[in-house]
Amino acid sequence: MEGMPLEIPAKMKAAVLMAPNKLEIKDVQIPSPGPHDVLINVKACAICSSDVSLMHKPWPYQPPYGSFVPGHEYAGTVVAVGETVDEFQTGDRVAVEAHLGCLRCRNCRLGNYTACLNYGKPEKGHRANGFTTNGGYAQYVVNHINTVYKIPDRVEFEEAALITNLGCVLYGFETIGGYVVGDQVVVIGPGPLGLISVAVAKALCAGNVVLTGTRDSRLEAGLAMGADRVVNVNDEDPMTAVMDETQGLGADLIIESSGNVNGPQTAIEMAKRMGKILMLGFPDGSVTANFSALGKDNKSIYTVRGEGWANVGRAISLLESGRISLKSLATHAFRLDEIEEAFKTFTQRIGGAIKVIIIPNAD
Amino acid sequence: MEGMPLEIPAKMKAAVLMAPNKLEIKDVQIPSPGPHDVLINVKACAICSSDVSLMHKPWPYQPPYGSFVPGHEYAGTVVAVGETVDEFQTGDRVAVEAHLGCLRCRNCRLGNYTACLNYGKPEKGHRANGFTTNGGYAQYVVNHINTVYKIPDRVEFEEAALITNLGCVLYGFETIGGYVVGDQVVVIGPGPLGLISVAVAKALCAGNVVLTGTRDSRLEAGLAMGADRVVNVNDEDPMTAVMDETQGLGADLIIESSGNVNGPQTAIEMAKRMGKILMLGFPDGSVTANFSALGKDNKSIYTVRGEGWANVGRAISLLESGRISLKSLATHAFRLDEIEEAFKTFTQRIGGAIKVIIIPNAD
Amino acid sequence: MEGMPLEIPAKMKAAVLMAPNKLEIKDVQIPSPGPHDVLINVKACAICSSDVSLMHKPWPYQPPYGSFVPGHEYAGTVVAVGETVDEFQTGDRVAVEAHLGCLRCRNCRLGNYTACLNYGKPEKGHRANGFTTNGGYAQYVVNHINTVYKIPDRVEFEEAALITNLGCVLYGFETIGGYVVGDQVVVIGPGPLGLISVAVAKALCAGNVVLTGTRDSRLEAGLAMGADRVVNVNDEDPMTAVMDETQGLGADLIIESSGNVNGPQTAIEMAKRMGKILMLGFPDGSVTANFSALGKDNKSIYTVRGEGWANVGRAISLLESGRISLKSLATHAFRLDEIEEAFKTFTQRIGGAIKVIIIPNAD
Amino acid sequence: MEGMPLEIPAKMKAAVLMAPNKLEIKDVQIPSPGPHDVLINVKACAICSSDVSLMHKPWPYQPPYGSFVPGHEYAGTVVAVGETVDEFQTGDRVAVEAHLGCLRCRNCRLGNYTACLNYGKPEKGHRANGFTTNGGYAQYVVNHINTVYKIPDRVEFEEAALITNLGCVLYGFETIGGYVVGDQVVVIGPGPLGLISVAVAKALCAGNVVLTGTRDSRLEAGLAMGADRVVNVNDEDPMTAVMDETQGLGADLIIESSGNVNGPQTAIEMAKRMGKILMLGFPDGSVTANFSALGKDNKSIYTVRGEGWANVGRAISLLESGRISLKSLATHAFRLDEIEEAFKTFTQRIGGAIKVIIIPNAD
Repeated sequence: MEGMPLEIPAKMKAAVLMAPNKLEIKDVQIPSPGPHDVLINVKACAICSSDVSLMHKPWPYQPPYGSFVPGHEYAGTVVAVGETVDEFQTGDRVAVEAHLGCLRCRNCRLGNYTACLNYGKPEKGHRANGFTTNGGYAQYVVNHINTVYKIPDRVEFEEAALITNLGCVLYGFETIGGYVVGDQVVVIGPGPLGLISVAVAKALCAGNVVLTGTRDSRLEAGLAMGADRVVNVNDEDPMTAVMDETQGLGADLIIESSGNVNGPQTAIEMAKRMGKILMLGFPDGSVTANFSALGKDNKSIYTVRGEGWANVGRAISLLESGRISLKSLATHAFRLDEIEEAFKTFTQRIGGAIKVIIIPNAD
Repeated sequence: MEGMPLEIPAKMKAAVLMAPNKLEIKDVQIPSPGPHDVLINVKACAICSSDVSLMHKPWPYQPPYGSFVPGHEYAGTVVAVGETVDEFQTGDRVAVEAHLGCLRCRNCRLGNYTACLNYGKPEKGHRANGFTTNGGYAQYVVNHINTVYKIPDRVEFEEAALITNLGCVLYGFETIGGYVVGDQVVVIGPGPLGLISVAVAKALCAGNVVLTGTRDSRLEAGLAMGADRVVNVNDEDPMTAVMDETQGLGADLIIESSGNVNGPQTAIEMAKRMGKILMLGFPDGSVTANFSALGKDNKSIYTVRGEGWANVGRAISLLESGRISLKSLATHAFRLDEIEEAFKTFTQRIGGAIKVIIIPNAD
Repeated sequence: MEGMPLEIPAKMKAAVLMAPNKLEIKDVQIPSPGPHDVLINVKACAICSSDVSLMHKPWPYQPPYGSFVPGHEYAGTVVAVGETVDEFQTGDRVAVEAHLGCLRCRNCRLGNYTACLNYGKPEKGHRANGFTTNGGYAQYVVNHINTVYKIPDRVEFEEAALITNLGCVLYGFETIGGYVVGDQVVVIGPGPLGLISVAVAKALCAGNVVLTGTRDSRLEAGLAMGADRVVNVNDEDPMTAVMDETQGLGADLIIESSGNVNGPQTAIEMAKRMGKILMLGFPDGSVTANFSALGKDNKSIYTVRGEGWANVGRAISLLESGRISLKSLATHAFRLDEIEEAFKTFTQRIGGAIKVIIIPNAD
Repeated sequence: MEGMPLEIPAKMKAAVLMAPNKLEIKDVQIPSPGPHDVLINVKACAICSSDVSLMHKPWPYQPPYGSFVPGHEYAGTVVAVGETVDEFQTGDRVAVEAHLGCLRCRNCRLGNYTACLNYGKPEKGHRANGFTTNGGYAQYVVNHINTVYKIPDRVEFEEAALITNLGCVLYGFETIGGYVVGDQVVVIGPGPLGLISVAVAKALCAGNVVLTGTRDSRLEAGLAMGADRVVNVNDEDPMTAVMDETQGLGADLIIESSGNVNGPQTAIEMAKRMGKILMLGFPDGSVTANFSALGKDNKSIYTVRGEGWANVGRAISLLESGRISLKSLATHAFRLDEIEEAFKTFTQRIGGAIKVIIIPNAD
């Protein structure tokens, strides 16, 4: 049968944001899928630094305290489908993306749904699960089918929960043109998106990938993801290293994912004439940068919001073929009732934590 | 005959940069065209703010004092052609662009010759007349044919001397995608490039063009170039005006040509989600900007160096058809021996000066 | 009030396709707008050659005889809005586009809704009014808001009814890159799309536009739309003319809109090395062409389905500014009960007919 | 010293085309490198089907019988450099591309040098070694540095001689957009370019690659290059196979490299709505195709001439990293004096020949 099978209970456990930095595990009503939705039994939901940020201070259009379940990086099993849905069936193993555009504004109509002009307006059809509508720190969650992708058996839920990260990086690569065969790439900052950027650059046959950072353990993780050279900026001048690798010309593509206040300026200086800068990490507030240097050498700066242009689908292909593995990034897992400890592990990088996973339906 | 006709004298008058801010009219040898060159009798050479900058403090790869003739915006008549040249004939009326790439580096091979990786290396073939090789504040100048374009009779030399400005703006529009039909555009700063940006936006059928600035005379010039609305920021909040014109969404394209320290941040704030920012003016040194706001809304920043991708040829087409006229920008003209007064008129905007022209061969 | 105002009657007149080439004016139920729809009182609906074709032989997914109202080029007034709609109000003057994608397939999600992978499946949300769902040869029609655009007062309904044609040509120009300043363009075939292609090429500042055809009256219409040169192929060899205009190099862009069996091959031959061919007209069935000539000179062929990428919105901007006028193409108008005569006028080009308009609510 | 070292003799052996299909090994003068050239001692030169074609019937701008040395796929060692050259040194191991544009026409200036508008005009600077100027079936050959790329030690000359094939395929992928992660690709025809297309599609992370052909041995080679499925069209209907792999939707990208008369039409039918067709093989003369089917589904056709946009440089990166190996394609090698047998082996596919290499300096 379609709709709501018998085995789904009426209530579920969910981590509800009650106040700043205060998640509480509560029994709440299980949502019903609308005509274009599926109901997902969440098997894994990864903690993202944006969760930390929005729990600290609400993001625009975030639902009020007491009603909002965060979590936007999750995977699970379809347990019910909406009345028009034949793209999915009960039992399908799936991963998701966060952004469902409104499907009616100009940006959505042109395919740019992560930049929806009706962001935060559910009455217009927009949803961003875990941001403006309920997300995955719960046993069940409803997703519009546009945000759901089947995953093959060989991909485990923990890895699949990280797929928005890979989708986001792929969206970045598509944004800067998508074709980097033989190009020189520098990645600044070995956070999750930086490490994945290394993997994507190599998967797309970039010629030489340099990763810079401050923690040796993360730089080693970068080597494991395929970096040709890692630079600990405490030991070595990264600009010298990049110029050394590029015959003094700078790199074709700089991916700034450190979010450091010096990140934009460093990226500008490291780029080759006509080079491109992709920003995945952003410092809070205003920082200084030399735009004149940007212009003098005909460089450009690109950003991405979320995991657009259906790149989560492309991401699954990479996991399926084994061209990229995210498993090593999923360093820790916790039950839903341990979510406080999970966040602490993530923010303090306890035990070398990179990505920390919540298992909402763990026994 | 080809080569060097009899009527060309051995010596010419040229404005040689002898020291910072010190141009001296001297008798110098007339250069000979190489195999791929033409010799041009300069009829008009326009002053650019980059001339002011490089006379104040030398730009990279600028020839030494005592030997360097600046001036890169000029037009004239071909008086001799190199041995392989049949693309031009003696008597052709021509305009020029500044950048001849080396034609052998990777950027040049891919068509990005204004971002030549051998910039400033004449031994590799690179020239940028008026920057790294001699320019147009002289009676004669040599140009490689790649930098020369025939102009039709209906286009006068004074207007043709401004064509690199139009070529630069067109290159900017091509860089951001080239297709702006119906788009909302904001131009910040009514300098020459800003005014031309207004004209190009309207020529390419942008829907609504707002120009912001501080001088009413320049804003009126902007209306004459086709702006739909002008905003004097001393009288009216430009952000309010832009949001008013765009139903609160921001504009599709922001062209920052003020060079003001607030320019980048203002541009970021005025752009729509997924909007584009084209930077034509640059503040000296570092300024502050909120990259997080750039990224949150998936915006991107583009720059242009010079007048690339052969857009000077496209620019001539616009002048020829009358779709754009630059005549009103050429507000003043001086003889070569009046060049000091000409620069003063330009920098102090005496008499409402916009672009000031030197006529090197005036009687 | 929203929804269904009192003044809307229960029944309307509509031209229902009863059998091949047989339209019958019938009284039918007025449709109700769904939650994302508006109900439009049709003021003008233009005859398209695809109407002629699908009335002769049903197109894929066309509704059965006895229930289908064709007509996809129409404009009118909003008389009721669906429950979620605040983008439009009763009384708004609007034009439409035909294709509403399903909004859930991969093509739709990426903005390519005219190439919807669920074409013809209304149960998935797809509609193509006048093709797979009811259209505008009726007093009222329902449109999803994604397919509706407000028109300014200065644009009359008859002209607005032609806007899908302009949207289609703009989509074509955007498909080939969108930036044609100074380019040499050839348009083959002075049908409605060909004539509009001439106008768009000139509006976007193409350098020189040649139009070829067989009827002097249509070629004169092309001159009125801005063609720089027209070639009656009965009097003059078009290839010679094109080579004459392009120094023997061929044109940058060839727009084939004749639908003639020789069209593709002629277009291939007329294109410059690296040139582009945009096909807007298509011969029935297979034709011969020399692909080797295409490849030897690195040429490419683009097509467009419908009026994609929201170009109808851009089209309205062009009509509003007066940059393009379609009025001269709307040569004839008929009442709904004269629809048979209207089609005859169109197909036989009686009285020099170019576009023929039905006025469903004429007194 | 630079220029011409002592060890270079005055004469060399070269295969000169004396008449149709008649190559003769002759002693000829070793050419001198011009100022922007290098002299290469040819270590390996691969036979291409275009050699077979131009030996059968001269191609446009081919030098006259008695003076022309064909061969455009070669690698070797730099033995002398022109006076301005410091990009290369004597002893460098190098591979080449065929096309040196004139560097002065509009196409060359925009980076499209394989579509040079001065093709075949050496007086304008154009060269296409092995087509319009002498090539690699000789002990020495002169190349402009723009057409020369260093190869790392780990790449052998035989493999490097095939690099224009890989450069051509990469140029094709860049032409269609360059980003195919997860896309469904079909390659028609397992010739050298088809087999390499399979390898490139997989290297760039295409999701599923189907190869169709008629010879099991070649299809097995396709499996070795990474094809996910091969279809012998004598055993299985390829259209059924493609629809089976694509849920009936057709593939995102069709690469036609069979050159078969049915190739274009098959490609059109196999492509998804909005799909792309890249043509690498071309039937002689005109063939039939249904352009209406192309247009109805918004498909487009791309071609490539040669190995443009400096993709040979990117190709070397792929060989260096081992992401693609061409070794298995170099099935046979012959001495220069065995060139007749070599061509016979290639054209008759003796011993399963795929690519056949001439070793001009074999002992």
